[in-house]
Amino acid sequence: MKQKSSPVRHAARFMLGAVSMAALLMAAPVRAQEPVQPIAGPKVTSPAKVELGKKLWFDPRLSRSGFISCNSCHNLSMGGSDNLKTSIGDKWQKGPINSPTVLNSSLNLAQFWDGRAKDLKEQAGGPIANPGEMAFTHGLAVDMLRSIPQYVAEFKKVFGHDKLTIDEVTAAIAAFEETLVTPNARFDKWLKGDKKAINAQELRGYQLFKSSGCVACHNGPNLGGNSFQKMGLVEPYKTDNPAEGRSAVTGNDAERFNFKVPTLRNVELTYPYFHDGAADTLSQAVDTMGRLQLGKKFTGQENADIVAFLKTLTGDQPKIAMPILPPSSDKTKRPQPFE
Amino acid sequence: MKQKSSPVRHAARFMLGAVSMAALLMAAPVRAQEPVQPIAGPKVTSPAKVELGKKLWFDPRLSRSGFISCNSCHNLSMGGSDNLKTSIGDKWQKGPINSPTVLNSSLNLAQFWDGRAKDLKEQAGGPIANPGEMAFTHGLAVDMLRSIPQYVAEFKKVFGHDKLTIDEVTAAIAAFEETLVTPNARFDKWLKGDKKAINAQELRGYQLFKSSGCVACHNGPNLGGNSFQKMGLVEPYKTDNPAEGRSAVTGNDAERFNFKVPTLRNVELTYPYFHDGAADTLSQAVDTMGRLQLGKKFTGQENADIVAFLKTLTGDQPKIAMPILPPSSDKTKRPQPFE
Repeated sequence: MKQKSSPVRHAARFMLGAVSMAALLMAAPVRAQEPVQPIAGPKVTSPAKVELGKKLWFDPRLSRSGFISCNSCHNLSMGGSDNLKTSIGDKWQKGPINSPTVLNSSLNLAQFWDGRAKDLKEQAGGPIANPGEMAFTHGLAVDMLRSIPQYVAEFKKVFGHDKLTIDEVTAAIAAFEETLVTPNARFDKWLKGDKKAINAQELRGYQLFKSSGCVACHNGPNLGGNSFQKMGLVEPYKTDNPAEGRSAVTGNDAERFNFKVPTLRNVELTYPYFHDGAADTLSQAVDTMGRLQLGKKFTGQENADIVAFLKTLTGDQPKIAMPILPPSSDKTKRPQPFE
Repeated sequence: MKQKSSPVRHAARFMLGAVSMAALLMAAPVRAQEPVQPIAGPKVTSPAKVELGKKLWFDPRLSRSGFISCNSCHNLSMGGSDNLKTSIGDKWQKGPINSPTVLNSSLNLAQFWDGRAKDLKEQAGGPIANPGEMAFTHGLAVDMLRSIPQYVAEFKKVFGHDKLTIDEVTAAIAAFEETLVTPNARFDKWLKGDKKAINAQELRGYQLFKSSGCVACHNGPNLGGNSFQKMGLVEPYKTDNPAEGRSAVTGNDAERFNFKVPTLRNVELTYPYFHDGAADTLSQAVDTMGRLQLGKKFTGQENADIVAFLKTLTGDQPKIAMPILPPSSDKTKRPQPFE
């Protein structure tokens, strides 16, 4: 029934409108009380440094063999991981631990599963010199870069001098890695007030994720990455993997089997799961975590709901234009992968 | 000295202008008589097929280990090659031959050094099933793809049905590879009439390249790729590499050590050189080719001039946005790289 307009009705409508608007605006503050926060897009403060870091990220000449780059085990086409239980290193060596995703890793309190590197810059030097991974040395990596005029020029442009040190190499790689964030996950849209961004099952999964206690460790903008926790809290975790976790770093035996809580961002892409890569599927991982960390056996429906929620955490993947690497010069030492 | 204009002078100037214009326009036809022709940019007739092919190109799940993709040995950041003498295959096996560049490979008369594949589609199936390379089987590769809903949907969109066959896999990869051409090399600009595109040394190098006979094999738009020729024509080529070349395909012993002439496009990026990767630098390669194929010892200056010319053949590298690969489903068989 159409009604005639009157000044009073106008005023009433205006107020109702104002209330609705306020309700909408309130949505954000309400969500802000959630134990998970949306993540922001990348902020690039030094584009030349990031671009140099991207080249280094993709450059297999930072390995002894000339075959393995950072991207080999943290593949940006595959959620920043290699989707293997443990990684393949120089001469096909079996890696000791599952490669964690590089995506959103700048949000972590420390790097590596045991947190032995305080930041991305410190981390970046590790695999290059690890005999089981890229199996090079920092000195040889720097020699290689110094032999390539285009790299020399780029380092000079970024760092303002001709030294070209391993510190600059890792700083540039870290600057690139800091751009590898994945905003706009459907769950983040929901957190920001878009109620339709996730469906009823996904919301049920999130509520169960909170009420069951998963969120006690997987919280914050990265749903993890901000604490070390014992793997196998209620029930011991059985594995052949010899990694000791945090105690190997601190020497404190009480921290044995404490690992950095992995992020759940993009977890649909970063299988297999756990530090030993033992869980092939999200369903298995949720089941194991429920039993071992929470003493809880999720029903099939509960498991499916949590898995559905976890799949809402896939954000916009970084858009990477493959770099064209500066060619080696006649002076660059050629890799001998089979020696 | 300024002169007064007259109708006659006007006419004379007009004619001179016309002659200059004609001379400029003639430049292209003159260059068209060169034994080398510019290459055209990519023509993408089926963008969805190319996009699917790009995903497959970067997908290491087409290998037994889940670690090696087409891009591992034909790295689009490194001139479409791996810059190794011979490639690294499954379990770090030493490859039998140098990986040829994928760039402009659609222009070749056949694929592989010995031309055993008639086209890119036929070639693409080779490495997947080669026990020394990706070490998978076509059947397992197809099983993997069929287990991933997003791949199933993309194949259906491109090919119009639900079959998902290895023929479709290789057709899509070939469609992507066909886009990997590198137009606008400085030398192509010169061929098209831009006299300043190459300098005096580079032009000298080109003239020597022609007059010495290099161009007898390295001609056409790809400066090679269009014939099989004997390696070590004047003087035998000494190598430990057991590759027999064309005779292994044809059974004709007269064709022993005949290999497909490699393209010289982007040759600055595709070191090391020859089928055994024995020449680390362009200078070495030019020296060896001169002696073995032409019975000619180039002077240092001549060698440098030819090398300078060869570096004008680097074209625009394909701009590749890294694909985001569809994640494995719970049904996808997980790779076991260490078994």
